[in-house]
Amino acid sequence: MSAVINHRKGAVTREAIIDRAYLMACSAGLDQLSIGSLAQAVHMSKSGVFAHFGSREGLQLAVIESAGLRFGNHVLVPALAMPRGLPRLRAIVDRWCDWVRHTSDGGCLYLAAVSEFDDRPGPIRECLLQHETRWRHELARAIQLTIDVGELHADTDPQQLAFEIYSLALIVHHDSGLFGYEPARERGLRAFERLIRSYSPTR
Amino acid sequence: MSAVINHRKGAVTREAIIDRAYLMACSAGLDQLSIGSLAQAVHMSKSGVFAHFGSREGLQLAVIESAGLRFGNHVLVPALAMPRGLPRLRAIVDRWCDWVRHTSDGGCLYLAAVSEFDDRPGPIRECLLQHETRWRHELARAIQLTIDVGELHADTDPQQLAFEIYSLALIVHHDSGLFGYEPARERGLRAFERLIRSYSPTR
Repeated sequence: MSAVINHRKGAVTREAIIDRAYLMACSAGLDQLSIGSLAQAVHMSKSGVFAHFGSREGLQLAVIESAGLRFGNHVLVPALAMPRGLPRLRAIVDRWCDWVRHTSDGGCLYLAAVSEFDDRPGPIRECLLQHETRWRHELARAIQLTIDVGELHADTDPQQLAFEIYSLALIVHHDSGLFGYEPARERGLRAFERLIRSYSPTR
Repeated sequence: MSAVINHRKGAVTREAIIDRAYLMACSAGLDQLSIGSLAQAVHMSKSGVFAHFGSREGLQLAVIESAGLRFGNHVLVPALAMPRGLPRLRAIVDRWCDWVRHTSDGGCLYLAAVSEFDDRPGPIRECLLQHETRWRHELARAIQLTIDVGELHADTDPQQLAFEIYSLALIVHHDSGLFGYEPARERGLRAFERLIRSYSPTR
C-alpha cells in the first residue's frame, strides 16, 4: 500500500518538476535547462531531480512531451468539440493563434526548440520531428473532413493546405514577438479566410 | 598617409572579424557570441577585438548589420535586376527560399536572432525591428509595382500580401530544418503561385 502511495507521490512530484521546467524552458529556451538550476527552483537536491529523469536530455524530452500535451489540450481538444468541417478548422486556427501569442513567458517553447535543435541530430530532434509529424497529420485530417463535408474543393491537397495554414501560425508567432499580438492575429485570420476561399468548392 | 593606411587596415580587420563573428553566430546563435571566443577564432587579443566594437552588444549589432547586407545582396539586389512586376516578385521569393535554406551553418541568423531577442527590450531588438520594417517595406514596394503594372488586382493590400509572402519564407525555413530543403521549397513555391493567383486581376 505504501509503495503505491509512494509511486503516486513520485508521479505528482515529477509532474510538478516538469511544470516548473516547462516554464523555465519557455522563457530561457530548452537548451538552457539544467538539472542544477531546476533543482534550485523546485527546492530539491540535484540528485532528487536527477532520479526522476536520468539525464538532462531525459528532462528535456519530458518537457517537450509536456509541451505537446499542453498544445493538444489548448488547440486540438476544444476544436474537436466543434462540428467537422470549417467550424472545426476555424477553431483550430483561432486556438493556435492564441497559443503562439507572445506573453511574458517568451512565446512557443516548441518553435523555439525547433530553432535550437533542428540542426542537431539526436533524440531531442527526433522527438520534435515526431510531434511535428503528428500535428501535421491532425491538421491534414481536419482538412480532409472539411473536404468530405463539401466545404473545400475536392481537389484540395490536405498536406499542402496544412503547410499553408502552418505558415500562418508561424508568422503570427513571429510578428507577434516584434509588432504585437493583435495586429499579427488580425492579419493571420484575414489570410486564413482568403486561403480558405481560394480552396472553396464554388470558386 | 600612414594614418589613412592604418584607417583602411583597421576597416579591413573589422570586416574580417565581423565575417568570422557572423559565421559563429549563424551556427551557435547571436546570444552565444562572446568577444573572448571570437578573439580566439581570429587569433587576436580580447582587447584588440574589443577596440573595434566597444562592447559585446556593439559586436552583436555589427553582426546584424552584416547579416542585413548579406541578405540584401543575396535576395533583393538580383531581384531588382528583373523587370518590375511578377518577374521581380518571383525572383524575390526564389532568392529568399534559397537564403532560408538550412545549410551546415545552421540556418538564417536573422530569424534565430528574432526568436532569441524579440522578448528582450534593448538596442538589439530595436535593430532587428528596423531591419524587419525595412524589408517589409521593400517587399510591399515590389508588390505595389506589380499592382501598378496590372499583374495583381487593384484592391490588393501590399502590406497584407507582404505578410502572406513572409509567412511562406518562414515555413520554408522551418520545414527545411526538420524535413529537408527541397520538399519545403517545392511546397513554398506552390503556395506562392496559388497566393498570386488569388490576387490576380482577372480572378
